[in-house]
Amino acid sequence: MSSTSSLRGPDPDRGLAAADLAGVRLAVENRLAQLLAAHPGVPPNLQGAVRHATLAPSKRVRPVLLVLIADPDPLMEQSALDVGCAVEMVHTASLILDDLPCMDDALMRRERPTTHLEFGQSTAILSAIALLTRAFGLIAELSLVAPQTRTRLAAVLSQAVGWDGLVAGQEIDVNGREALVGAEQVENLNWLKTGILFVAAAEMGAILAGFDEPRIDAVRRFARHFGLAFQTADDLLDRSGSAEQAGKDVGKDVDKATLVSLFGASHARLTCEEHLARADAALGESGVREEPVRALMAKLFGALPASAS
Amino acid sequence: MSSTSSLRGPDPDRGLAAADLAGVRLAVENRLAQLLAAHPGVPPNLQGAVRHATLAPSKRVRPVLLVLIADPDPLMEQSALDVGCAVEMVHTASLILDDLPCMDDALMRRERPTTHLEFGQSTAILSAIALLTRAFGLIAELSLVAPQTRTRLAAVLSQAVGWDGLVAGQEIDVNGREALVGAEQVENLNWLKTGILFVAAAEMGAILAGFDEPRIDAVRRFARHFGLAFQTADDLLDRSGSAEQAGKDVGKDVDKATLVSLFGASHARLTCEEHLARADAALGESGVREEPVRALMAKLFGALPASAS
Repeated sequence: MSSTSSLRGPDPDRGLAAADLAGVRLAVENRLAQLLAAHPGVPPNLQGAVRHATLAPSKRVRPVLLVLIADPDPLMEQSALDVGCAVEMVHTASLILDDLPCMDDALMRRERPTTHLEFGQSTAILSAIALLTRAFGLIAELSLVAPQTRTRLAAVLSQAVGWDGLVAGQEIDVNGREALVGAEQVENLNWLKTGILFVAAAEMGAILAGFDEPRIDAVRRFARHFGLAFQTADDLLDRSGSAEQAGKDVGKDVDKATLVSLFGASHARLTCEEHLARADAALGESGVREEPVRALMAKLFGALPASAS
Repeated sequence: MSSTSSLRGPDPDRGLAAADLAGVRLAVENRLAQLLAAHPGVPPNLQGAVRHATLAPSKRVRPVLLVLIADPDPLMEQSALDVGCAVEMVHTASLILDDLPCMDDALMRRERPTTHLEFGQSTAILSAIALLTRAFGLIAELSLVAPQTRTRLAAVLSQAVGWDGLVAGQEIDVNGREALVGAEQVENLNWLKTGILFVAAAEMGAILAGFDEPRIDAVRRFARHFGLAFQTADDLLDRSGSAEQAGKDVGKDVDKATLVSLFGASHARLTCEEHLARADAALGESGVREEPVRALMAKLFGALPASAS
């Protein structure tokens, strides 16, 4: 982490977006593994569960997006990675809980058996708590980031996850989905389940980068549409993809109201494309270095919903 | 919260410890209710679960202890209450999870049906996540507290709750209790399950009060022994008390290794008294205003383990 090469690949003039992307993702993976390395006071089963869930194969979309937007200089690289890892820990915690028998009762996640299948329900739940708690600890302990920036990052993350955010989305998904009517309510659920943490990740990157409020606002709009496109693509994949392709159970949402079930795959695909177009426009306004973010979008969406049928 | 009377009772010369105690507890209760008031974006079932678990009858030991140690002037009262409420939210989250079918499978807590019985398992788990997340958000948003103090408070809380803290304690309690041998390992479990959050609460009070490191250290020692005495008293009550007396299921720990099961009630009672004596000595060293803290100890322990048989 001591030079830019770890994040930006071999090209010092920042021209190679694809190298950026791969470099950032690798740096996130390495930092996550470091942060979750063996620790004497941690019960082995709990440690195993945390590592099983977090270090499983993943695109690391949220932390990569955060780091690309933060676009840190060498001095800030480690801090940006840590904040990215904090977001990834929160996201992983939400996946562990989503998969529990009392929620989606899923068998496979990130190409592995779900955490409760491998480590038991109680340890799975506790591993989610451990990850969530560590995320806030990591942010509080960012020694190279000004304390007022750390508190702002923590506030953004807390608001995104809280009882009117991601947690509300999961509650509605599990216990209130049948009451949803119309595209607006389904989009609101998509927003809570996915969009809100995308926006938080992007906003945290923009805060770390020191953007002014209008630029932070453009980043938020970009990430909102990006996240909604991502969730719609996920719903399409749940219908049309294989478990192998998705790395997790598919078909779990067949009885749930999604844009796909309500309006069909072609409408959902159009919605997805519209969100991507709006994301692209906001990206231009934000002043974020566009190439690597575009490369991330191409990687995520190039092979997915537009071509799936 | 705009005058000292809400925290200190009617006596402006600070002489009435018992009034302090009742006043602080009431102020904590009121602030908790405010913080958890209805909010439009929160699913009603989730909101109900959070309020059911948190606003149930409780001694509020941790937040009261925190506020008594912080001993805030009028300007800092609201902040001290908020930090106390954050700790109480974390504690409540841990109780919700402890009681789940896959953990202690308890029916009653704080004189009410456990949260999963009343609201379902998924909502109970999500309410714990909401509380934990809100706790860190509350601390991040303390507008009258210096940002570097907020980050220190968050770090202390995260370290106490994390995978080598409270979460480790719950993991060992549920999945590793049968492997415990000897008083030392049982005391370590008591430390993780109860002591560590007591110490965090007390330390957070001392940080808010602006104590120097030697005084913070004395506060930590005080709270460590206080917390261990409290857990031992709880184990005694689990054996000898009624559910009505405890406000929760009792006898859940009959098959678990506790100081009571290993060495009998009289030994546990001696251990409890020893911890109280050490707590008392450290309290003197800390320079904390002693009367209200002594009143809290008398209230908690006067009627409990020493006289139970």
